[in-house]
This record gives sequence, structure tokens and C-alpha cells, in this order.
Amino acid sequence: MITEFDTSLPSTRQLQNLIKQAAPTEIKLLTGDILTGRVMWQDQYSVCLVDDNSQQVMIWKQAIAYFKPLSN
Amino acid sequence: MITEFDTSLPSTRQLQNLIKQAAPTEIKLLTGDILTGRVMWQDQYSVCLVDDNSQQVMIWKQAIAYFKPLSN
Amino acid sequence: MITEFDTSLPSTRQLQNLIKQAAPTEIKLLTGDILTGRVMWQDQYSVCLVDDNSQQVMIWKQAIAYFKPLSN
Amino acid sequence: MITEFDTSLPSTRQLQNLIKQAAPTEIKLLTGDILTGRVMWQDQYSVCLVDDNSQQVMIWKQAIAYFKPLSN
Amino acid sequence: MITEFDTSLPSTRQLQNLIKQAAPTEIKLLTGDILTGRVMWQDQYSVCLVDDNSQQVMIWKQAIAYFKPLSN
Amino acid sequence: MITEFDTSLPSTRQLQNLIKQAAPTEIKLLTGDILTGRVMWQDQYSVCLVDDNSQQVMIWKQAIAYFKPLSN
Repeated sequence: MITEFDTSLPSTRQLQNLIKQAAPTEIKLLTGDILTGRVMWQDQYSVCLVDDNSQQVMIWKQAIAYFKPLSN
Repeated sequence: MITEFDTSLPSTRQLQNLIKQAAPTEIKLLTGDILTGRVMWQDQYSVCLVDDNSQQVMIWKQAIAYFKPLSN
Repeated sequence: MITEFDTSLPSTRQLQNLIKQAAPTEIKLLTGDILTGRVMWQDQYSVCLVDDNSQQVMIWKQAIAYFKPLSN
Repeated sequence: MITEFDTSLPSTRQLQNLIKQAAPTEIKLLTGDILTGRVMWQDQYSVCLVDDNSQQVMIWKQAIAYFKPLSN
Repeated sequence: MITEFDTSLPSTRQLQNLIKQAAPTEIKLLTGDILTGRVMWQDQYSVCLVDDNSQQVMIWKQAIAYFKPLSN
Repeated sequence: MITEFDTSLPSTRQLQNLIKQAAPTEIKLLTGDILTGRVMWQDQYSVCLVDDNSQQVMIWKQAIAYFKPLSN
């Protein structure tokens, strides 16, 4: 996926909000995996999630099907 | 997927109509998941769906197989 | 998929013919789903199929494996 | 997939040879489907295969895993 | 996936750190495979992993769902 | 996948080495298929593998998860 990482885009801002709020987030991947944790940062190509065991996972944006805040 | 988000494109307009009408919509993902709800907004890379429990889901357009209005 | 929607391309013309003829068409998706109906329109990113129950389905071209006319 | 459809590329020429020779060809898709037939034409985005029952199938190149001549 | 291989991007730097530290790394692919080993190098399109048997595997970045350091 | 086919890239050179050495190679596809043989050539979009029965297979690079030399 080519993303311009335009921070004015709603989708980018939505992820930025989840980062600022350290909100529990669920991310579903195209593999079918569901990862949960807090989003630490994002860049053009990936999202860094930290789970409850402080394990960092660098998720390729190309592999994401959807994400949702868990405490909505 | 690179989309230019050209609002004159039929596919973009179709989604915009579903947003305006708050029409119940079904979205099938490449993972096989079927999500239903109302589309709140779209941008170049994603679609925001709100389900019956007011849960927001940010769906990557790259992961969409098809969408259809349920009350057609 | 980036498509330039060049209407002189055989693949684009083939789809346009199916639209003009309102020919029953089968579309196989990368999800494994097989959808049948008549193609109403296409744009750069999607194809609109109407099934026998008049249900419209907007199919992302990125999710298409193949299509074939059923009355060939 | 963005292809420039450079006819000097080995992969494009290979497909062109199969078309000229009307050689029986097997195409494996990312869906896991295996289609066999003769390749009629290709353009930038698709390949047209005709099977033994004269059924035309327009295969999106994005969905192809591999192809191979059967009478090699 | 088009990547500009911008070494200032967090995701690129993160991988570079794993390379420098020769840190045990787990890479999950879109096929569902989980590969573990040490990342030797990366370029724009791939990542080279060496497993415990010194077997080199060249992984296409397009096929990566996520990676994570195992000794985090 | 858009590749510039930059022959100075490690991943391109690695494949070129396998071609020069006619080294037995395993290629895993996104379909889950594992193909083995010798790589004959590559271009921007595909890799040509010849198996032990001299069967040529043209593999789309977009469909590759990883490749590895078998006699490493």
C-alpha cells in the first residue's frame, strides 16, 4: 500500500488519537489474526502495537484489515 | 491500493450516498469477515463503519472485497 | 491495484461489452466467493453487479480473481 | 499490480509466445484455483484464457500466482 | 508494496536495530507461516532472515504481516 | 508489486546469484505452495523456475512469500 501519510486524513488522525489516548485497540490482520494492545506509533508503512506483556509488534499496514478502539 | 479519492467516481459517490442516507451496509473483507453497520465516513484509505452497538471500526479499503446496501 | 481506466484496453472493453449486453456474468473473488449477476457499471476501482434479486453489490477490482460471461 | 506492459520483458514475451503457439497453459491463482486452457490475449491488467469448452475467462493479473505451459 | 526505503522512518530504523543487535526476531507472513531467526539485512523489497540452522531465507516485504523482537 | 528492478539491490543480486550458480531453490508462494527447482531468469515482475522434470513455471513476484537456497 502506498500511503502519503497525510496527517490530515481522518484515518491517520483516528490512529493518532488512539496513540495519544493510549486506548486499548484491536487490530485484525489479513491473516485472520486479531492483535490487541496499545498503539505506540505509526509511520507510512507500519503500526507499532504493544500488548499487555509489553511485547512490541511491528504490524505492516498492508496486512491490516481493520482496527477498532476497544473502549469506545 | 492507491486511490485518488476522486469524488466524481461512481464508486466514491456510491459510498457517499450510503453515508448521507445512513443506510445499513454490509462490507465483506478479504479475510472472509462480513461486517454490517452504517458507514460514517470514508477517506482515501479507509472506511469508518459503526455497528448496532455503536462500535466504530476503521476498515482499510485495501481489505475490502465488496460492499452492498442492505436496504436496497 | 492502480488502473488507468484506459477504455482502449481489451480487459476494459470486455467488461464494457458485458455491460452493454447486460450479459449474465460470473465474478470470482480472491475470498473464494463467486458472485453472479449483470454488470451495471465499472469505474477505475470497482465493478457494480446486480444479482437476480436486484441487489447491488459494489465489488472492488482489487478483490477480483476473474470474471467470465455465463452465456458465452 | 502496476505493469508497464513492456513487451520486451521476458515474462511478457513468454506469455506472448504461449498466445502465438496456442499452447495449453495452466494458470494458478492466489485463490488456489488452477485454470487450464489457451491464452487468447493479454493486456496490462489481465489475461484471457479459453478453456476446452470455449468458455472465456478474463483473469486479473493481480490474482495470478504462476503460469506454466503444459506441453513443455 | 512500494517502499521508498526511507531510513529515517521508525519502521525501517526498528528493523535496522534488530539487524545491529542480531536480535532473535519472529516474522509472521500473510501465508500464516511464522519464521524465526536473526535479520541479516533488508532492502526496499525484502528482508533476509537467518535461522538457527544458518539457513538464509529471503522474505518479500509484501508478504509480511508483522515482525517482533523475541527478546524484548 | 512495483519493482524498479534495480540490480544493485541485495534481493535482486541474491536472486541473480542463484541463477548464476544454478542453485536448487525453494520458493514459497502466498497460496501456500512450495515450488522447488532452479531459477532460470527474473525480470521486474516474475521469476522463471525450472523443476527437476524440466517443467518451466513463470512465478509472479507478487505471489512470492519467500525464497531460499536449498544447498546453503
